[in-house]
Amino acid sequence: MYIPPHFEEVSASSVASVMDEAPLACVVAHTEDGLIANHLPLLKSPKGELIGHVALANDMHRLITPRLEVLAIFRRDDAYVSPNYYPTKAKHHRHVPTWNYEVVHVYGTLIFQHDDHAKRSAVGLLTRTHERRLNGENAWRMADAPTDYMEKMLDGIVAFKMTTTRILAKSKLSQNREELDYIGTVEGLRNAGKAAMAERMTRRISESG
Amino acid sequence: MYIPPHFEEVSASSVASVMDEAPLACVVAHTEDGLIANHLPLLKSPKGELIGHVALANDMHRLITPRLEVLAIFRRDDAYVSPNYYPTKAKHHRHVPTWNYEVVHVYGTLIFQHDDHAKRSAVGLLTRTHERRLNGENAWRMADAPTDYMEKMLDGIVAFKMTTTRILAKSKLSQNREELDYIGTVEGLRNAGKAAMAERMTRRISESG
Repeated sequence: MYIPPHFEEVSASSVASVMDEAPLACVVAHTEDGLIANHLPLLKSPKGELIGHVALANDMHRLITPRLEVLAIFRRDDAYVSPNYYPTKAKHHRHVPTWNYEVVHVYGTLIFQHDDHAKRSAVGLLTRTHERRLNGENAWRMADAPTDYMEKMLDGIVAFKMTTTRILAKSKLSQNREELDYIGTVEGLRNAGKAAMAERMTRRISESG
Repeated sequence: MYIPPHFEEVSASSVASVMDEAPLACVVAHTEDGLIANHLPLLKSPKGELIGHVALANDMHRLITPRLEVLAIFRRDDAYVSPNYYPTKAKHHRHVPTWNYEVVHVYGTLIFQHDDHAKRSAVGLLTRTHERRLNGENAWRMADAPTDYMEKMLDGIVAFKMTTTRILAKSKLSQNREELDYIGTVEGLRNAGKAAMAERMTRRISESG
């Protein structure tokens, strides 16, 4: 990924928040079948590995061998940025459109796990995390489902853990703009229905002082 | 990508609308530098090719050779789906969480173009389309910028066109659920702030009768 220095994300907490708030990663690999990509929710385990699972019917776990390079792409919401957002446009018109986005590219390798313990751990981690976020005290729990049903479900999946070799992170959020145009972009994005991105851009500038 | 038959998107208009409404594609290739991925807005030209451009400083146009397989991934918003959304859960509890999303994977090859005509065409197509959508009659136009500035900007980019070899499209929108649970999911997603997806799911069921 091309990352000009001003768009390189150097904040570990920003990287973590993209992965946490946009957990449906696109997992890509180049296999004997060519490029393959699957969209899978991933979460960091307490040991720091990325945890997920796929359907047993998904060829991915047969095509991706233990040492093959895999890329997990996390991306938050994105937005077109119009030159009309920049107040300085009226002065010199030296602006062109662009696109804002935040991405984290995690490179590594995958180990697939067919044992019951690993599968229950992966499903448990994902379920607990996302259920608590959505439903709090009313979170659905694996134990709510009948045992025979859960066993049948677990029979149909393969768990995996991803070991990270390197991370590329890019936050393209108008950091290369002068303050007036940055503020104009926040306002423009908010008016265009991109409130979440506008909010993050506002927080960024207040945190950096 | 693993696509069970009930999640295969067979509607050409649905495929087109994902590419149109989520135009920031993730363009992936396996090069001599390993897997590379760049996030680029793409649009269909009148001839049916996907058109885009990258910074001249982006190694992508040196690493991707004319016959190399490239994958452009388009993805609309996604959402966690809780078993709590399903009214039939109370009856038999035979449900597990899942994730909804809509993706289009376009496979093909890229030709990079360094000539002024191709670059102006690519920038013009992208700018006109996105400015009109956002600003209507107040759309910014390339001609608004000074000539010397636009020339400098064009000097810094490379245009490309992508020829499609195959498309995989998956709409994971609870089509495998019985009607009661489908409607419950629409309601659950709406309450969880996923109004756009809820809206599309409602439209889908009314269109299919």
